[in-house]
Order: sequence, then structure tokens, then C-alpha cells
Amino acid sequence: MTSEATTAPVIRADGRTADQLRPISITRGWSKQAEGSALIEFGNTRVLCTASLTEGVPRWLKGEGRGWVTAEYAMLPRATNTRSDRESVKGKIGGRTHEISRLIGRSLRSIIDTKALGENTIVLDCDVLQADGGTRTAAITGAYVALAEAIRFARENKIIPASSQPLTDTIAAVSVGIIDGVPMLDLPYVEDVRAETDMNVVVTGSGKFVEVQGTAEGAPFDRDELNALLDLALLGTEQLAAIQRETLAEAP
Amino acid sequence: MTSEATTAPVIRADGRTADQLRPISITRGWSKQAEGSALIEFGNTRVLCTASLTEGVPRWLKGEGRGWVTAEYAMLPRATNTRSDRESVKGKIGGRTHEISRLIGRSLRSIIDTKALGENTIVLDCDVLQADGGTRTAAITGAYVALAEAIRFARENKIIPASSQPLTDTIAAVSVGIIDGVPMLDLPYVEDVRAETDMNVVVTGSGKFVEVQGTAEGAPFDRDELNALLDLALLGTEQLAAIQRETLAEAP
Amino acid sequence: MTSEATTAPVIRADGRTADQLRPISITRGWSKQAEGSALIEFGNTRVLCTASLTEGVPRWLKGEGRGWVTAEYAMLPRATNTRSDRESVKGKIGGRTHEISRLIGRSLRSIIDTKALGENTIVLDCDVLQADGGTRTAAITGAYVALAEAIRFARENKIIPASSQPLTDTIAAVSVGIIDGVPMLDLPYVEDVRAETDMNVVVTGSGKFVEVQGTAEGAPFDRDELNALLDLALLGTEQLAAIQRETLAEAP
Amino acid sequence: MTSEATTAPVIRADGRTADQLRPISITRGWSKQAEGSALIEFGNTRVLCTASLTEGVPRWLKGEGRGWVTAEYAMLPRATNTRSDRESVKGKIGGRTHEISRLIGRSLRSIIDTKALGENTIVLDCDVLQADGGTRTAAITGAYVALAEAIRFARENKIIPASSQPLTDTIAAVSVGIIDGVPMLDLPYVEDVRAETDMNVVVTGSGKFVEVQGTAEGAPFDRDELNALLDLALLGTEQLAAIQRETLAEAP
Amino acid sequence: MTSEATTAPVIRADGRTADQLRPISITRGWSKQAEGSALIEFGNTRVLCTASLTEGVPRWLKGEGRGWVTAEYAMLPRATNTRSDRESVKGKIGGRTHEISRLIGRSLRSIIDTKALGENTIVLDCDVLQADGGTRTAAITGAYVALAEAIRFARENKIIPASSQPLTDTIAAVSVGIIDGVPMLDLPYVEDVRAETDMNVVVTGSGKFVEVQGTAEGAPFDRDELNALLDLALLGTEQLAAIQRETLAEAP
Amino acid sequence: MTSEATTAPVIRADGRTADQLRPISITRGWSKQAEGSALIEFGNTRVLCTASLTEGVPRWLKGEGRGWVTAEYAMLPRATNTRSDRESVKGKIGGRTHEISRLIGRSLRSIIDTKALGENTIVLDCDVLQADGGTRTAAITGAYVALAEAIRFARENKIIPASSQPLTDTIAAVSVGIIDGVPMLDLPYVEDVRAETDMNVVVTGSGKFVEVQGTAEGAPFDRDELNALLDLALLGTEQLAAIQRETLAEAP
Repeated sequence: MTSEATTAPVIRADGRTADQLRPISITRGWSKQAEGSALIEFGNTRVLCTASLTEGVPRWLKGEGRGWVTAEYAMLPRATNTRSDRESVKGKIGGRTHEISRLIGRSLRSIIDTKALGENTIVLDCDVLQADGGTRTAAITGAYVALAEAIRFARENKIIPASSQPLTDTIAAVSVGIIDGVPMLDLPYVEDVRAETDMNVVVTGSGKFVEVQGTAEGAPFDRDELNALLDLALLGTEQLAAIQRETLAEAP
Repeated sequence: MTSEATTAPVIRADGRTADQLRPISITRGWSKQAEGSALIEFGNTRVLCTASLTEGVPRWLKGEGRGWVTAEYAMLPRATNTRSDRESVKGKIGGRTHEISRLIGRSLRSIIDTKALGENTIVLDCDVLQADGGTRTAAITGAYVALAEAIRFARENKIIPASSQPLTDTIAAVSVGIIDGVPMLDLPYVEDVRAETDMNVVVTGSGKFVEVQGTAEGAPFDRDELNALLDLALLGTEQLAAIQRETLAEAP
Repeated sequence: MTSEATTAPVIRADGRTADQLRPISITRGWSKQAEGSALIEFGNTRVLCTASLTEGVPRWLKGEGRGWVTAEYAMLPRATNTRSDRESVKGKIGGRTHEISRLIGRSLRSIIDTKALGENTIVLDCDVLQADGGTRTAAITGAYVALAEAIRFARENKIIPASSQPLTDTIAAVSVGIIDGVPMLDLPYVEDVRAETDMNVVVTGSGKFVEVQGTAEGAPFDRDELNALLDLALLGTEQLAAIQRETLAEAP
Repeated sequence: MTSEATTAPVIRADGRTADQLRPISITRGWSKQAEGSALIEFGNTRVLCTASLTEGVPRWLKGEGRGWVTAEYAMLPRATNTRSDRESVKGKIGGRTHEISRLIGRSLRSIIDTKALGENTIVLDCDVLQADGGTRTAAITGAYVALAEAIRFARENKIIPASSQPLTDTIAAVSVGIIDGVPMLDLPYVEDVRAETDMNVVVTGSGKFVEVQGTAEGAPFDRDELNALLDLALLGTEQLAAIQRETLAEAP
Repeated sequence: MTSEATTAPVIRADGRTADQLRPISITRGWSKQAEGSALIEFGNTRVLCTASLTEGVPRWLKGEGRGWVTAEYAMLPRATNTRSDRESVKGKIGGRTHEISRLIGRSLRSIIDTKALGENTIVLDCDVLQADGGTRTAAITGAYVALAEAIRFARENKIIPASSQPLTDTIAAVSVGIIDGVPMLDLPYVEDVRAETDMNVVVTGSGKFVEVQGTAEGAPFDRDELNALLDLALLGTEQLAAIQRETLAEAP
Repeated sequence: MTSEATTAPVIRADGRTADQLRPISITRGWSKQAEGSALIEFGNTRVLCTASLTEGVPRWLKGEGRGWVTAEYAMLPRATNTRSDRESVKGKIGGRTHEISRLIGRSLRSIIDTKALGENTIVLDCDVLQADGGTRTAAITGAYVALAEAIRFARENKIIPASSQPLTDTIAAVSVGIIDGVPMLDLPYVEDVRAETDMNVVVTGSGKFVEVQGTAEGAPFDRDELNALLDLALLGTEQLAAIQRETLAEAP
């Protein structure tokens, strides 16, 4: 945060200052079946991200010598405080699920050199086991780790050449919002529902924007508020990028 | 645009400068059946917006003395250059359709005082008859006109008191993007597919943001590029707001 | 009508005599994206017909040297006086929609020489923008114009030889019905709901029947009534055929 | 047939003359579970019709003191010569199924006095066990018998007063068509696929039309051909009505 | 039953002793369209089983020189005492239907030598026309007859060599259950709903088990009860196997 | 196992003897949102079971003073070695999923006194996070722990009286199978695919059967083999019951 004066004194329900992330934990390789996986926690939000690598690409991409990365997001029925019906039982996927799946896929593709991936496909499945706000940003941040692991797997198993570098950068995401006029970082559910403005920001390891999705839930927001939120988001994603680096640096 | 030097000299394929809107046309009352309607054109993009007013609200809102506004977006199969399968035939709605319907609904609700609307529901149907880029921003801009007409209808037919003011502001939207490094306003399809960054911005008549949705399609974008795009968007939505006012000022 | 004495004196709510069509308008080329298109109006009924031409045929027809023509009919949710749920949202197509799509497809195929069309497919989309009775007959009549335009396009773009004549005749359709014992031509919604017998008749430019679909909504009908209705239908389709010819004769 | 000279000498593949029905058999009460049932056979076409009577009516009809009659048609997957996929497995009902279900429902409602039925609902299920052309006309003819049985059941079980007469007439249906220029009655599959024109006619016991659905499969048809087909249809339905009367006259 | 003392004195509502089957009837070749068919009756339960033989196998089995046998089970809406909604209308197949289809398929595959069948597929459709308990066991028992007929057809039509023996055994199934503490054979609906334990047993002609599916509907069951039920099941399936043999021995 | 001589010497791929369970782990309260939860592991099989308690019962049970317990089973797309499509994306639930959900629900209901539960509903969600054989038996065993926790919750929060004892017993399940002629306990995936006979057995804490589901995947099985499998299953479920008791005895 640029302006300590404004936000630092606010102490939130969970004891954090306005510009603090929740405790972040990433357990790499949580799933033994997938080529890459990570169980990521942003406080009580817990998302299992797996990366499934298969040779070949969707039909519309065949023969172009490029790979494909896509994502699917879902929530267990009792990830939330009250149980929701399963989308498989309802027979259709809701708009919110679709929207988040597309966001995760776009975000990860933004740091992939599909030529270097060869004609291979990686599907990122992000299943929310427990939800407490920020599930889509945790999913993007965790999916990056699963993706990096799957690419390491591809290299080690000679699916792509050892010299291939399909990852052009790292990627992380965080939510920010304005509550009672104060911009805050990484909102848990209890803050999220009260936010006047809610923004999800996806940022590369080099500090550039991939997605900026700001929504006025209550009152519209002005240019200054937008800037304060972007400052907070950059602060948070920088820390997330550091945690990602550490996690991936550990021996597998 | 802040920086004339950068953008003014660029002449686009359709003869516009970088900071110019396409020809905008709004035909109010195009549909005789709906309580409110508008056929809106942003160049060759043509969207029919109808507002359907019914007494009563969805069950989860009953008894709270508040109204409800929602939206559904769809595209005719041959609105685009090649025909798409109908979503009704496929038996499910795609992620993009869902996402845009939700965006339109949120945008319009941001300028509605639901208390003043009473326990009434307004559904905005935005059907794209011809698509040439910017269909979602045209839909929001046209839906506002249909919504305003429906509220006028409600007042004239004593469904709400003559003194009720459910509209707290006006709302318009425009797309902006960066093409070959140049920020540009109101992208037609041919530009949209080439844009490195693509942003849809929803702005109130009073110049505040309701939605900012920026996506790096190619390279990630930095803070300066983001600012240049927001400047352009505010320029465009200000002009759209003026056209909306004129349209609604005409005798019905 | 055979019997002037019976029907001529009746003046309908909209000022027409029993054997008069509503004002008919056909705007050819209304859509810029499709190979052929027509916005057709039968009074307040307004249907947008587009023809999409693609090379190739469905799998079951491959290699036979013949083309394929099919149609899809749909209604915008607020084409009618009260809003209907979208079939895409409901996840299934209703029986009425299916039935009308099939009727339009069969009608147009009856005047097509599929050999002369070569292995090309034309899909006619008939979307009802405003409904006031007779939407299926307007759709058939308008779809013919879009189809003829698409075939002209195919010839001009050398998709079929310049000498090919895939159209063997013209086709038009009209509704007729018995109201208070009086056979009437081209029923608007207000008459349609009151009709004892309702009949849709599809007729070639040379005056032969392609479809005769008569339904007793109230009392069953006898042979004389059937004959009176067929007379009226032939009268109406002859006039529609003349309007189609004029529309297509105009420079594109 | 009006003109013996034309049609009588033609001997069809199954040995019939042009104006002859196939062997007709109706087994009343074939199903022990339903309030009314009939297994009907038109040659090798075999349809099981059951009538399910329940108290109450659909919501939109409540409180009007009137009953409701509706129908559902379906085909077993191996009713036909090659197996079709089940519509339940495909997850949607095809257009043809929808169309025929609606036709059967309309036909039966045309001879029902819904006031006399009271607020009761009768659903006719017509399941084709074996298909050899004319399944929809056999279904209508058999459904009438099941319906009459269910009404007798309602009377005997005092669900409606003993004096109620919900049936205003009887109803039967037959297919007719033109093959090699010759109008023929009651087409089996092998003739149906060759017919230039195909017509299904639904006729009351008193000889009036309820539905006339004629379709030119090959060449369009003229007024004389239409008249010849209607003559044949009336001949056939008169015989079917006689068989229905006999069936229902037998002790249960 | 091994122990006459326990069960013989019990006389059931339909006059049977505890160890007696209902009257069993199998009409082979009931359907003229299918390569094999049987209408099977266990008392009032009536199931139409057809076998559809097609050359070729599902994609995942291609090129392995083996055939495939699968089954689909369904119930007519009014097979039961009160009408159920059609699964085709609901747009999805219920869990019970799925479960039984899979059971029938597995049971029949257990006595098939897929090598001897060659690359051919047989689909068994088991449609319940009337349901009075034991529909799945009747379906398996009848499907065997249809399957055997289809294999005879394949041999006679030289689809498989005259010397091929794809059937390695026969297969039949029966339900057993404990009612008021007494193990009973072949439960009709009225007994089925009262059973504390309900078991479906699929047994080969040589007396070995293919499926044992026991469920405690009320109180859990012990080892002795399980044994008594298995004894009864073997008694019943032995009789069913004899009836199958007789049916297939008759000249077609 | 009755016959040590037969099975003890066999050492399986994972080092177990034929009558040994895999390492079992139950983490109670793994999910913070649900009224009851357990993460259960049978070797590498890992299932998250949550119990959702809500007041009220389904409509068909209202006013009877009894509660309801039901279950839903699902697998994450990459729980298995190769990724499966999501059932929510396919828009329908597969037969296997349906079948297992029903099995879990029935099993748990068998040890519930629904009167003592009052008009409350408990939904057990069993989501397979990692699959290595025996997922349905792990799900039943874990769901019991989640259910017991939810009932404790209900008692502590006075949703049911402190003296209510809705649980009448405990319940656990295990798979058994015959591999190369040897009956074995608790099969991992690699054994499961090779098993000639596969059986899932659900047993109460008091050693009675609730479900016995044996299937011959290869050769049919005889009475002796069935008995050997049941012996093994009772051995395994007794150990599982002990682990459940320990888990639930720990302070929450």
C-alpha cells in the first residue's frame, strides 16, 4: 500500500492489517496421480489444483506445432457454509463456474509459450475443497505451481526437449476490495460480502497485469480508489510470487 | 485521450482516429410488444434490447419491498460471419453467454434503487442481431434505454408511484484495446481479434466506474497502458451518455 | 374466395376484409453477414430470415453429389406479449419450435433440385423478432427470399456453376382459419386464438400444394369448409409470390 | 374411393387393393395396471396405448371446473428395422416425437367435453412396440379406445357422475398417400418411403375432419389429388370407427 | 428350499408356497423386427426383450477380434400402478435405470465368449411393459432367450461361422427376500415392498453365481438368512433354466 | 479367513498378506464448514466425506416426524490415473456414480433410527480426491464418521434432544475379491482390474450384513468361494469398526 496512513491502523476481524495477506500455504505434489499438483490455502480457503498432461491437442489446433492449456474450476457441494446442489446433479454448469474456469485458463495461457510446449495439452483442475473467499485467486496461484510441476515432468520424461522453456513468467492472483471506504487486500468471505467494490487482479512475476476485473457491488468507484486497489494487488501478488518460487525450489 | 500525439495520427481501417467511436444509433421503441425497447447500433454491431416488466419478484426476494433487474444476452446463430450452433439446440448455454448476461445484469443494477422500483421485476433481453465487436458494451448501453423506457411505462401505468425515481444515474459501456501498441476506442471485430489487451469499461453518467474488465490477450500490460485505456473509455462513455439522453428526451 | 356473398361484408378488427392479407413487407439483405437474408413483416409479425451457405453436406449425404437445405425457427423471448423463457436457458427445445423448424425445412426442400446445388448446405435461420400470428408462414415466405439470395451468391462466387438452377419453383405460405363461421385469410394473433379451425398452407409459385395442415381447434370441420379455406389460401399465396418476385427483381 | 376405375386394379405388395385397410386388431385391457388400455395393430404396426386417470389438473387449469387430456408418443428402440438410440439416453426428445405427441393430444381433446370430465386428468401413453408405417394413426385410433375405457372406469368408480358424457364423438385416424400416381389407403413402411404425397387424416365418428396433414414428399400435389386422398381417408376411418365400436361393445 | 418344515406351510397372497415361482411364460420371437426377441412374463410382470445384432464394435474395442454385448433397461410410464414421468421427457436417466441396465449387461457378458462372437455387437433392450416385482430378474432371464436367438440368426446368416459357440452357458435370475422372517422366492410387488431383505441372484445353467446382490431394506441379515436365500435362488434359477431350454428347443 | 493355509503365504505387490487391510487413516473434522466431516484413506484411496445437516425433510416425508439421510458420491476428474471428463461438464451423471451414491445412502440409512433424528436431513457428500480401488467402501466407512459427528453436533446444538440416539449401530464396508484363485481383502486398483470375482460387503458393528454385492468379472463363482469372500469381509469390517470407534472417541 502506498498510503500507510490510510490503511495500516485498521485491524480486521482476523487480526490482519488492510495490506496483509492471509496465511498462505502451498503443498506441492499433494495428489499422487497427476503430473503436477498443489493443495493451496489462503487462510481457510483450500483448493486442490491438479495438472493433467496428455499428448496431442484439441482438433482445432492440430498440426500447428503448438500446445494447449485450459482449466476447469469447481466447488465441492459442502465447500461453503451451506451446502449447494452439485452442478453434475443439476445437469448444467452455472455462469459463475464457467466464468472462473475461463479466467483461470486465460491467466495461465498468458505465461505459456505454446510453441515450446509442443503438441501437448495440460488441463488444470481447480477443485475448491473449502471456500472462504478468494477461491479463484487461490486457484490461479496454485494452478501455476501444478502447471510448473507438470512441465518439469514433461521435460524429465522427454515429452518435451530438456531445453524447452514453455513458461515465460510466473503468475499469481489476489482479490482486493473497498470495505467501509478502506481498500483491503485478500478478502475472506465475511469481508467479500460487505465490499463496496471487489477486484480480482492477476499479475505476472515481472509485475505486469494479465487480468483486472473490478466490479462495483455497491457504489461505483472513482479513479483514486481504483489506483489504491491496484497498489494493494501488486503488493500481494509480489508476495505470492515469492512463495511460489520457494515451493518450486524445494526438492520434489 | 490524454496524449493526442500518440493516437490522433493513426487512421484505422474504417477511417476513424484512435479515440473515435463508430457511428452510434439508438432506435427507441423498436419492439411494439415490450414495455421498453431499443435497437442499438455501434457501427455494424446491432443489438435488440427489450425490457419486460412484471409485477412480483423472485421468491428469494419476496416481502422485502424491493424490485429486481436482471439480463439475458444471446446471439442469433448467423449474427457472426460464420454460423454458430444455437445454444438451445446444443441444450446448454456457453460460458461466454453466461458471463456477458451476468455483466449486463450487474451493470444495470448498479444504477437502480430497488426500493424505489417496488416489488417489480424487469428482465432485459439483449439479442445480438448482427455482431461486429463490442456486442456486450452495445448491449449495456442499449439496455439502459430500454430500462428507462420500462420505468417510464411503470410510472405512467401507476405500477410505481409517479414520484418514484428507481434510476439513480445513467450507464453506458465501451470497449478499448491496445493494437500494435496503440490504445484505441470501440473496437470492431477486425481490431478486436488483433488486440494485445482488450478492456470493457462500464461507466455511470457521472463518470464513475461500475466495471473494469481488462484482459491481456497477448502480452501483459503495464500501469501506463491501463491508464491510457481508462482515459479512452471515459471519453467514449461520456459521448454515449449524451446520445442516451437525447434518445430518451425525444417524445416517445 | 369462392363466395363473395359470405365473406366480403365482414370487416375485421384491423379493417381488412376476410380475403385480404395484412400489409406485407420484405427487406432483402437486412443482415450484412449472411449469404442471403430478409426481414419479412406480415403486419406486426416480424421475422429475420438468414441463409448460411457452407460447402460440404452432412455426413449421411456425403459423396452423393447432392446438396442439403435445412431450417431452424426460434422466437426471441419478448417477441410475444408476455415474455417466455429462452429455450437455451431451459436446456431444451419445445415441441412447437421443433415442429415449425421441420415444416420450414421440408417446404424449402420441395422446390430445391439438390443435384443442381452440388455438395453444399444452406441453413435457413428464421428468428421471430416480433410475433403477431402467422410467424411460421411469414418465416417460410421470407426464408424463400433469403434462400434465393444465397443461391445467387453461390452462383456469383462460382460455388455452383453459373448455369445451375437449384430453385425449381418459388414457395410461399399463409394461414387461414374459420372465425365465427367465416373463413378468413392471414390471421393475426387476436383472430388466431378465436379460430375454430386453423390451417397453414404452403403453395408453390405454380399453385400446387406442398403442405396442408388443418387443425380443428374448436368444432371439427366439414368438406365445404375445408374447400373454402383452400381457396382463400391460394388467393393469399398468389399475392405473396408476386411480392417475392418484385423483391428479388430489385437490384441487390 | 370415388373412382374404382383408377385404383381397384392395383394390387399392392401385401395383396391389398388401393382402398383397403391392413388387418386391424384392437385388444382392449391389454395392460392390467392402467385405467384404460388397448394394444392396437395395423398389420405389423403394434402400439400399446394406456390411459392414466388422475384426479386434479395442471396448475394453469386449476379452479376452472374442467379436465385435461394429453398424450405422449414414443417408440421402443428396436420397434424399427434398425435400432435407434433411446431418447432417454440421448437426453432429449426429437422433433418427430414431439410433433406426434402433440397431434395425438389435440386429436383426442377434440372429442372431449372437458366440463363433463370434471377436474381430472387423463394421460394417453402410446408406445410403439413394433413399427411398420402408420404408427401415429394407429396410436390415435387405439388411444381412443383406452380413453373410452378410462372414462368408463371413472364413471364406475364415481370419479365423475354416472350421467357424465365427456366423450362427444369417437375419433380415428388413417394415413393415405400417392404412390406412382395412385392414391392408396393405410401405407405400410415400404409404401410410405416411396410416397410422393403423404397425408394423415383424423376424422370423427360423425365424419368430420379434426386434422388434415398433407405433405408433398416428392412432387407438389394438386387439388384433384388432395380430393382423392380425402375420399380414401374417409373410407378408412369409417371402417376403423366400426371396429372401435365393436371393441368397446364387448363385455370388459 | 432345503427346509420344508420352515417354509412350506406358508401360503402367500397369490396362493404360492414360499419356494414356488410365479407362472412363467416366454414367447420367443414376439417382435418381428429384431434378430432375437422374447416376451417374458413372471406372473403379471411382463418384459419385452429384443436383441439387435450389428456388425462392428464400439471404437474402444476395434481391431481386437472380439464382440460386444450390452443392455438397456427401461419401463413404460404406465407399467406401474401409478404413472411415472418418462425419462426421455425428464431429459435424464435415473439411477435405478442405470443400475439395472448395467446389471443385465454384465450378467449376459458373463456367459459370452466374445472371441467366438467376432467383431459384432448385440444390444439387448429390455422394456418393461407391465411391472409387478422382479422386473430386472425377468429381464435377464428373457434377454438370454433373445440373445440366444440372435446368435442363431448370426450363425444362419453366416455373420459368424456355423461352428462358432459364443454362448458358454445359459443364464437366469430370480429375486428372493425375507418377509416376516420367512425366506421367499420370486417376490411380486406387494411382497417386495414388505421385504426386510431383498436379494437378486443371477445364476448360470451350471449353477454358479454371476451376481449376488443382497440388501437389507429393514433389519440387517445374518449368515444363516443369507444361506437360506441363496438356497431358494438356486432352486428358482434351476427351474427358469429348464423353461429357457424348452423355449429355445421349439422350432422357431 | 477360515483357511490360513490357502491365503497366508501369498504376498501381494504391496507386501500385504491376502487377509490384510491396507493402512487405514481417518482424519475427523478435516473440513471446517460441515457439521461433520472425515478425510478417509485406504492406502492411496482418499475420500473426503462431509455431512450437511439441515432442518426439515424432503416434501414426500413431511409431517411424519422422521428424518432423512442421503448421500452423493463423486470423483474429482484427476482422482484417477488418467483424467476423466467432469460429469457436470458432460451434463449428466454416469450409471456408476448413481449406483454408488444409492449404495452409500442405503447403507447409512440401515443404522439410522429416523424417528430419533426428528424432521432433519443429513446429506453425506463423498468426494474421491484420489482413487486407488475401494472408493465406495472407503466412502461408506468415512461417511459413517462424518454422520456420527453431525449427530453429535445436532445434539450439542439442541437440534435434537440430548437423549436422542439416532444411530442404532456403526457401519463399515470393504471390498474382497478372488485373484488367481485366491480370495483377498481390500483390493487396490491394480488387483481390482485382475479380480475374477469382486465383492463389496457392508457390515454393521454387530457383524450383520447390510449389503452383499458380488459380481463375477471373469468366471462365475461357486458357494465355497462366496463363503471364503464373506469370511474375509467380516474380518476386514471388524477392524474398520475398531478404527471408527477410536477416531470418534478422540476429543473433537
